[in-house]
Parts: sequence; structure tokens; C-alpha cells
Amino acid sequence: MSQDGPGSSSGLDRLSLNTATCKRLSLADCVELAARAGLGAVGPWRDRVQEVGVARAATMIRAAGLRVSTLCRGGFLTASDGRARRDALDDNRRAIDEAATLGTHELVVVVGGLPAAFARLGLPMTDADAHDKDIVAARDRVADGIAELVPYACERSVRLVLEPMHPIFAADRGVLQTLGQALDLAAPFPAEVVGVVADTYHVWWDPQCRAQIERAGRQGRLASYQVCDWILPLAPEPLNSRGLMGDGFIDFPTITSWVRDAGYTGDVEVEIFNEDLWALPGDEVVRLISERYRALIAPHLG
Amino acid sequence: MSQDGPGSSSGLDRLSLNTATCKRLSLADCVELAARAGLGAVGPWRDRVQEVGVARAATMIRAAGLRVSTLCRGGFLTASDGRARRDALDDNRRAIDEAATLGTHELVVVVGGLPAAFARLGLPMTDADAHDKDIVAARDRVADGIAELVPYACERSVRLVLEPMHPIFAADRGVLQTLGQALDLAAPFPAEVVGVVADTYHVWWDPQCRAQIERAGRQGRLASYQVCDWILPLAPEPLNSRGLMGDGFIDFPTITSWVRDAGYTGDVEVEIFNEDLWALPGDEVVRLISERYRALIAPHLG
Repeated sequence: MSQDGPGSSSGLDRLSLNTATCKRLSLADCVELAARAGLGAVGPWRDRVQEVGVARAATMIRAAGLRVSTLCRGGFLTASDGRARRDALDDNRRAIDEAATLGTHELVVVVGGLPAAFARLGLPMTDADAHDKDIVAARDRVADGIAELVPYACERSVRLVLEPMHPIFAADRGVLQTLGQALDLAAPFPAEVVGVVADTYHVWWDPQCRAQIERAGRQGRLASYQVCDWILPLAPEPLNSRGLMGDGFIDFPTITSWVRDAGYTGDVEVEIFNEDLWALPGDEVVRLISERYRALIAPHLG
Repeated sequence: MSQDGPGSSSGLDRLSLNTATCKRLSLADCVELAARAGLGAVGPWRDRVQEVGVARAATMIRAAGLRVSTLCRGGFLTASDGRARRDALDDNRRAIDEAATLGTHELVVVVGGLPAAFARLGLPMTDADAHDKDIVAARDRVADGIAELVPYACERSVRLVLEPMHPIFAADRGVLQTLGQALDLAAPFPAEVVGVVADTYHVWWDPQCRAQIERAGRQGRLASYQVCDWILPLAPEPLNSRGLMGDGFIDFPTITSWVRDAGYTGDVEVEIFNEDLWALPGDEVVRLISERYRALIAPHLG
């Protein structure tokens, strides 16, 4: 770590390592890698935090001089069954507590898929769920769930950061597909309590991408900017088909300039699910993402 | 064929067999299968038509008492290279002529992907193309191409039917993602010359799906309703990952009711790219699509 603290001399002060990018490493390893490379932040997943305990995770990250850009993730609010719904809300309240303890304002929320697809993610499923393909109703339940969580999040100064997901995940992971839809969902609540994340993988294709990033910025709801690339052919498991920036088809300079013009001054979190990347040593992964960040993103951040 | 003509007694008079659903069969086989099962129409692809010659294809389909619901497909208008662009426009003019000869008003247009992805589809690619990931500019070239083709299509009473594609295909096949975007693109032109197709596979996830189907109906631009299902896991080649209605996660009764409420009274074309289906005998495929059509779609068509 330099005397000026992480990031200040490395040019990587706004770069954040999401722990999913180094999926096989512990939180301690991720924190060490990020700090050593001069990154400014990490974005931990809850499983990595829970492995060491939330309080200890918070101490560890703070001691390394790093910020927590976001906590991944709450959500999965589409269950119609009463018990499954209560369990999901409880789990989201725990996630809000964890975010508060970690000292991050931003809790990423992946809203969940259709009941008919619950089995695909190993979620409990009733007989009725098996036939439930009603995406309109699922979206309404998400809105209800958010409304129910808002007071709890508000009291703890944590923001529910809605993550629109690429339509490839509409059936099984998230029925929230666009920034516009996420902002509509956020509209009834204060910008400090419900925001949105623009993840290039999920939003790059959207003809409304620029306009909705601008809208999110104007409303003060642009809570996180995450980056990874759309690569082809898809991996056998599409969830793990995300690429290193520059390896695919996303125009990072342009989208980054839209995010900058929207007034975003926060961290740029690299979250890449990719088996090939997971097979590399951690310092090589951090070297690669730093290199691509410097080439494709940093020059356009303003 | 019954005395009343195909469809009238079968309850399948609005069902159309797109030849891609029986990809390995000839046009003659598809026509015979459709007529024998009592379907009202076929939706041929250009390669199947060209195998026998357009005039002969037209005679064959008419003799069987079938309509041509649509011709698939024109498009691929995203090239920036002058020569590739001229070639694409010429090919679209030929497609318009073929549609006119076949006696269909509706030419489906798949607009094409990013230049950086041309090689994936075996399209010619310049050095500049290899780095061109500018989706905004690609969409602008599509708009220019449509404008250039409109007079030619208009003179031949053929409608350019813009097909929004699921974002999984945004990079390599079509930079047109939503019905709303397609209707914006169509707006400068008369509804008789530029329309849109709602293919469930491409539009089911769209939070604007209902509103934009309604808008298309109101404007008289809803030119075709195509059906197939979103199945998981995806096939190794995602292009061929479409499912028989009912095998996946799409809510056909609901979307069909939206299409009905939009005033659509045309054919329901079944276009399924699926290796398992292609391996079945043609009459079994037609039996399956007829059964699913009767169960999930026909009752909601009005």
C-alpha cells in the first residue's frame, strides 16, 4: 500500500474487485490482492463475508484501506407462497444489516425469476409454482417486496440497489430487465433508499441505455457501475459466460462516457463470472482487469 | 384437404407452419404436411423457396390452398462498408420481389448485428469492422437502409416487417431489441409499408410487451404473430434453443390475449429452431405444434 493510500498513485482508485471475479479465493485473499494492486475498493458477495463473519470482514477491509463498493446481494422476491416470501424478506433484512455493518450504502438486489423456474436454482417450489409463468404478477410481487423492505433499509442507511438483468436471465434469475423498469420500480421511494446499478453485461443492448443512465443520474439513483463483457459463443452455463472487458462486443468507452455524463463519481466494480478467469492465479486476474480498466474505462470516466 | 379448404374444419385455419420448424424438409414436403393437417398457411424461408424457384413455389402453395403468412427474411443492413451495404440492399430488393411473387404482403426483416460480429455468421468483414462495436451507429445504418428500401417495397405492395430480436442476439444477428424500438423505426413510414412482428421468443421478457403490442395494433403495424418457447437450459447453439410452446417459460395465453386485444386477426406462425424437433418425422412435428396451438393459443385468439 502506498503512503497515499490505495489507488491514489496507481490510477486504480475507482476500481473495485467484486469477489465473484475471483470466485475461488477467500475474502482475505481478495482484499489483499486488491490492496496490493492499488485498487480502491472491493465488492464482496455475502457468502465470502459470512465465511469470516460480518464484523471481522468489515475490520479486514477497513484495515486494508479499502472501501466496500457494494454488497452482493439481496433479492429473490418473486415467491408467491407465503412462507417462501417471509423467508426471502427475512434474508433481505439480514443482508441489509450486513451491508450496514460493512459500512456500504449499496446493497445490490437481484429480484428473482419465475416460480416455474425456481427448481433450476435449487429454490423451494410448490406444485402451483411449477405452472406459474406469469411474469407480470412476478414483477408486481417484486414491487411489493421492495415496498416492504424500504423502511428497514432506510433506518439502517442502506440503499436497495435494483439490478436489471439481461433478458437471458428473465426466466430464472431476475424479472427486472431494463434500467427504465428499475427506475419505474424505484420511483415511489427516496433516491437514498432505492437505486439502480448499471452493469454493462445487463444493459449494453438496451436501446434506452443512454437515456435511462441519464435519468438515473438525474434522479440521484445511479448507485453502482459494474463492468464485464458480452462474449460469444456463450459458455455452456450462460451465467458464467461473462468476459473480460475488451474480449467481447460491448462498447465500454461509449457506455462509460454516458455514466460519467450522468454525474456518476463512484466505484467501477468488475464482476466477471468466467471459468477461464477463475482458473488463473488471483494476481494475474487483478493484473488483467487493471490493464483493461486503464485502456477502456478510466480514460472515459472524467 | 377437406372440401371446405384447409383449416376451416380443423380449427387450425390461423396456424401457419414456418419452414424453419421442419428445417430438413423441402418446401414441397412442408406444404403437403401443412395442407394435410388442415393448417391455413405456411411461412417459407427464402432458401426453401429458391430451391424450387419462386414462381413454382408460389404455384405449389396456392395449389394446396394455403396462404403465405410471411416470407423469411430480408435485412442484415448494418454493414458500413459501401460494397457490403450495396450488396445487402440488392439482396433485400430480391427478397421484396420474391415476397410479391409469392403473394405475401409481409417480408420479415432481421436487421443484422455488429460489424465486430460479422465473422460469426460468415459475413464478409473489413479490418475496420473487426473493431466496430458501436451499436448506436449500427442502428442508425438500419434506419437508413429501411428508408432506402421503402419506395421499392411500396411499389410492390410488400411490407418490411421489422423483427425485434431477443437481446441474446444483439451482438451477432439483430441490433433491434424491442417492439418499441421497432415501432420508433417504423414511425416515419406508412403502416402498409413498414410493420413489426411479435415473436414470443423475442418479446416475452419485455416489460413494455403489452403496451407495445397494443401500440402496434393501434397503428396497424402488427404484421405477424410468431410463437415458440423460451427453454432452459439453453442449447449449445443458442440459435437452436427454441422450444415447443408449453415446454418452456413463456405465458402464451396472456401474450396471445394481448395480440388479440390489439386487433390482430392474421396467422399464427410457428417458427422453432430446435435440433430435437428437427430429428422427428414431419407429421409428428405438425401434430405436436397443432396440439400445443389448440391448448395454449387458439382459445385466446378470439
